Amino acid sequence: MKPVSAEKVRVSDTFWTPYMELVRKVIVPYQWEVMNDRVEGVAKSHAVANVRIAAGLEEGEFYGFRFQDSDLAKWLEAAAWCLATERDPGLESLADGLIEDLGRAQWPDGYLNTYFTLKEKGKRWTCERDSHELYVAGHLIEAAVAYRRATGKTRFLDIMRANADHIDSIFGPQEGKLHGYPGHQVTEMALVGLYGETGEKRYLDLARYFIDERGRKPAFFELEAAARGQPDDKGYFRERMAEYNQTHLPVREQKKATGHAVRAVYMYSAMADLAALDGDAKLAEACRELWKDVTRRQMFVTGGIGQDESWEGFSEDYDLPNASTYNETCASIGLVFWAARMARLERKGDYFDVAERALHNGVLSGISLDGRKYFYVNLLESLPSVVAGTRDMNYASTTRKGWFPCACCPPNLARLIASIGGYIYSSSPGGRGSPPNVSVQLYIASEASLDIAGAALRIALRGDYPRSGRIGISVSPDRPACFSLRLRIPGWCAGFRLSLNGGDLNLAPVEGYVSILREWASGDSVDLELPMPVRRVAANPAVTADAGKVAIARGPVIYCLEEVDNGPNLADIVLAAEPRFSERFEEGLLGGVVAVYADAFRRGNGGAGPREAGEGGIQDRASELAAWGDDLYRDYEPFNTPLRIKAVPYYAWDNRGENEMLVWIRQG
Amino acid sequence: MKPVSAEKVRVSDTFWTPYMELVRKVIVPYQWEVMNDRVEGVAKSHAVANVRIAAGLEEGEFYGFRFQDSDLAKWLEAAAWCLATERDPGLESLADGLIEDLGRAQWPDGYLNTYFTLKEKGKRWTCERDSHELYVAGHLIEAAVAYRRATGKTRFLDIMRANADHIDSIFGPQEGKLHGYPGHQVTEMALVGLYGETGEKRYLDLARYFIDERGRKPAFFELEAAARGQPDDKGYFRERMAEYNQTHLPVREQKKATGHAVRAVYMYSAMADLAALDGDAKLAEACRELWKDVTRRQMFVTGGIGQDESWEGFSEDYDLPNASTYNETCASIGLVFWAARMARLERKGDYFDVAERALHNGVLSGISLDGRKYFYVNLLESLPSVVAGTRDMNYASTTRKGWFPCACCPPNLARLIASIGGYIYSSSPGGRGSPPNVSVQLYIASEASLDIAGAALRIALRGDYPRSGRIGISVSPDRPACFSLRLRIPGWCAGFRLSLNGGDLNLAPVEGYVSILREWASGDSVDLELPMPVRRVAANPAVTADAGKVAIARGPVIYCLEEVDNGPNLADIVLAAEPRFSERFEEGLLGGVVAVYADAFRRGNGGAGPREAGEGGIQDRASELAAWGDDLYRDYEPFNTPLRIKAVPYYAWDNRGENEMLVWIRQG
Repeated sequence: MKPVSAEKVRVSDTFWTPYMELVRKVIVPYQWEVMNDRVEGVAKSHAVANVRIAAGLEEGEFYGFRFQDSDLAKWLEAAAWCLATERDPGLESLADGLIEDLGRAQWPDGYLNTYFTLKEKGKRWTCERDSHELYVAGHLIEAAVAYRRATGKTRFLDIMRANADHIDSIFGPQEGKLHGYPGHQVTEMALVGLYGETGEKRYLDLARYFIDERGRKPAFFELEAAARGQPDDKGYFRERMAEYNQTHLPVREQKKATGHAVRAVYMYSAMADLAALDGDAKLAEACRELWKDVTRRQMFVTGGIGQDESWEGFSEDYDLPNASTYNETCASIGLVFWAARMARLERKGDYFDVAERALHNGVLSGISLDGRKYFYVNLLESLPSVVAGTRDMNYASTTRKGWFPCACCPPNLARLIASIGGYIYSSSPGGRGSPPNVSVQLYIASEASLDIAGAALRIALRGDYPRSGRIGISVSPDRPACFSLRLRIPGWCAGFRLSLNGGDLNLAPVEGYVSILREWASGDSVDLELPMPVRRVAANPAVTADAGKVAIARGPVIYCLEEVDNGPNLADIVLAAEPRFSERFEEGLLGGVVAVYADAFRRGNGGAGPREAGEGGIQDRASELAAWGDDLYRDYEPFNTPLRIKAVPYYAWDNRGENEMLVWIRQG
Repeated sequence: MKPVSAEKVRVSDTFWTPYMELVRKVIVPYQWEVMNDRVEGVAKSHAVANVRIAAGLEEGEFYGFRFQDSDLAKWLEAAAWCLATERDPGLESLADGLIEDLGRAQWPDGYLNTYFTLKEKGKRWTCERDSHELYVAGHLIEAAVAYRRATGKTRFLDIMRANADHIDSIFGPQEGKLHGYPGHQVTEMALVGLYGETGEKRYLDLARYFIDERGRKPAFFELEAAARGQPDDKGYFRERMAEYNQTHLPVREQKKATGHAVRAVYMYSAMADLAALDGDAKLAEACRELWKDVTRRQMFVTGGIGQDESWEGFSEDYDLPNASTYNETCASIGLVFWAARMARLERKGDYFDVAERALHNGVLSGISLDGRKYFYVNLLESLPSVVAGTRDMNYASTTRKGWFPCACCPPNLARLIASIGGYIYSSSPGGRGSPPNVSVQLYIASEASLDIAGAALRIALRGDYPRSGRIGISVSPDRPACFSLRLRIPGWCAGFRLSLNGGDLNLAPVEGYVSILREWASGDSVDLELPMPVRRVAANPAVTADAGKVAIARGPVIYCLEEVDNGPNLADIVLAAEPRFSERFEEGLLGGVVAVYADAFRRGNGGAGPREAGEGGIQDRASELAAWGDDLYRDYEPFNTPLRIKAVPYYAWDNRGENEMLVWIRQG
């Protein structure tokens, strides 16, 4: 399976195109201003200045984290995908200028990292466990590949090939090289991508080496510490450090997702890449085990992952605390990367079910509708008064922020949204008894061109997903061609209707896809309807945090309650046993969304007596609490106040002022 | 108000006497063995050896925390109260021997601390923020006072007076002294107690100085750091350090409980002492504000306090997370100390309502029924599989442990239980229009002698509280005397019956007490009945963690569900709307407790279909989970399986093997 890359897909979608426009017109320009420290009231970046200082173009001192350059890398990648969508000479010249500066900041031997150029000059390659040197390189390589594909220009790719060659001269199995691997993974998948773009097998070999070497004993990070003369330096998480950075076991023996979630899913992505490219069955099996652990035991209903704040990472199976979770935006983005790669490894609808779950919920929740504010941490339940006093509000904030001291998430969102077209289609020439095939993985209105079964195919997808599940697909090969068109039937969909050129097709999905195998001719059209009733979702009984609660869902979209619609104290709201759902597309609401209404009641406790419902059903919390006075506990004397609640898509919460929010609602 | 001290009260109670016997016969001997490192499989103590090494009696090195001596202090206090109850020459000789060794370990100038004698000799009084020097002194002073009262012997008190005199020479407002206060409070209340025992006003003045100085700027701990040449050393919690140790504000300006809970309540105890002794209205008002914040906004239904694991302390108001709380046993013990002192400051039933809540629930939960195992952290919801992977199991364990590296709680429990008799009665000579009075604060069967209104009074209390609320009180002054007998009517009690010499009395409680003012004569008897129906308790609507849930209570006892009685997956259990409670005293259960039974159901979700109820209503969780397979989320398809649940007193949980436990039950 090979995805149809973003630059070959033209997206014209009611849902995604506005986001892509936002990236191009607002987010990329805004983030450029932030990284130039020209935006007031947000965390200082200094990322551009670091490069210009390292390039000798400015005086000054390095500022920021050791991985500050990676923000620029992700921004450049976002810019690249924007340029692939639409030419923009101003943006291209900004990007070209930055690329030139990066070239000037590069050492003659190919090394490129402003922190270790300016701040700790003599210390390169001495503490990869913490240094993020390979991490920064990885993101820059990914950006360079994207920039080459988007613009056809090679300068950036040349810079990063020289950098990759330098890394190849430092790391590897050969004597005299460091027998190591990245402290923060991403380099591995970047090198696979660089191999894909250049055909240079050395890069693939190095990626494979990094993956294979990881977890071997004696551990590289311990040898490195000894070489620094710090044999007792075990790192920030001490005895948990190896789990934190996934070096506790060889990757093929890892069955349970552990440690820092972004590191983990970036690594699993490379593992899936290599399993597919090498036909490595053992690596594929490890990927499947880890996939099961992450998505079946440690994933929120929003596609959020990494529930443990202490190390921004995984926890125990079924430990999914809604109010105290971490769910870094980057982790959900990484889950999409991984899912897409798992789908290349084997065709199972589940992979893009998860990708879609993350995209429509836990990824997009990371960004405000105006593109200028971001969540780093994605709570599923927010009570601002408590969160403010109990969490690190630099990251676990209850309202989005303009930037972060560690600003990994905002440009990561930008590059993913800008390249969303690359996740829609994939194709395979078939073989070994399997016909050539084209798969539709996400229902994003778009048009793509690809070669299949000897024909040049134009495939176009129409619809207004996820507002509705009515999808039209036109299939136009330049000459009749026999191949299978495979359409993902989402796991949330209880029944679907499929027709070909107006005639019903009665096909059963296999592994999440229906396959229409025939000789296709120009003008063929397929209609697919995925009914989208409002659903209530329950969690596995082992998830105690969700016991007695349901989440409201419609299609791939998970809903939430916000205080602005339902009044404060959302935890008091109980969904009726038969909640008579209604839905309404509201043009003016949150950029145009389907709002969901349902019967519910507020259950008061403790003899406070029934109260009047306020305007629009909003309770007056002050009077409710006043009735309790100073009492913390009272005998139980319940009373119910009926209420028609309004739920909105989770990804769009916190766009109407800071307020309470709740995904899992008590079910009466 | 003056309490009748423990050595003047003879307890003969069905509930408490077995605990006191346990302390005398099992706990004190067991802890002595542990502190001599003669118990296998528990954390090393070395506390006795430290003293013997410091005394020059043994060779060796100090081991343990800087406050290791405080374990011995609390053990000596427990031993003292045991000796007050019953002579025990063996125990007394052990204690005398240890006291002699402490005397030998004392410096000629009165300084006494084995850590700073053996390990950091030159560093005494250089980092009180962390050193616990005053803390250790405080616990030893409290023990010495108790030992004097219990045995009449003065040797220990002499040692600790010399130590207190030394401290008085180091700290104080005078030039040349350190203008400081304890890094871990307790010294303040200890000095008040030393003043009470010796009448030496200097000790009271020093206690007051410590309280008044706290929170002044520039902060002592910063000056101390500068004097050490470490001006940047802000301590473990850095910018939160001042809140951690309650030095962020002068104590009279502190309105919200913050930081380390044990430090806090020990300080509040001394504040209440001083407010009463000095008639300090401003200090009394601060005590009331803090009392309200702790008991009305930050206290679990069990009397557990200190919900934030990160600093073993307070959090935000109404943030009461049942599964992730900390609730150190010592903090609930300290809450009892504070409550008793607040009750001296002003007669409000609320103070002993809280003390009783803590004693019967969050304090006694700290100890196993066999006296040999302890909880440091007291969860209100325990799912061992998750807790084991997400908490520091040295302390937040899901089953009690034999000892801890930091072993503050076990001997603290021992000294409180051994002195429980001191919390039952108090008296006041009256004045300013108020008659002399005797108060009964806790309904523990016992006999006490005290002087009131010119008579020698023998007061005796009978009953089997909390098994029932039927209490008999005989009042026998040696000559007729006019005073008021005040009986606490617990806040949980919705109606009570009171009679005097067989005739009904119709009195309304004022501030939680009914007062019988009359001329009492020998042979008078009062009968009080506090009905104890099973109740359901709800939490204030602001406590989102308890939304939709109730706790089962009977009298002062909070109940819980255990897996051993109700099967696994307790979070699935929903109490019926009308649960038809029944109760039964079960002699063989947990040392003899009233078990509570109720109608409930297990609600399954997600179309797993109804299952057979297993033996005794216990569900087969394996088959329930098997029905879900690998699914983490499914559409909601509820089904109910009826169940008669069994609840047991919370304090007695985890005495039948490690298992799931739950206090707050879903209410249908």
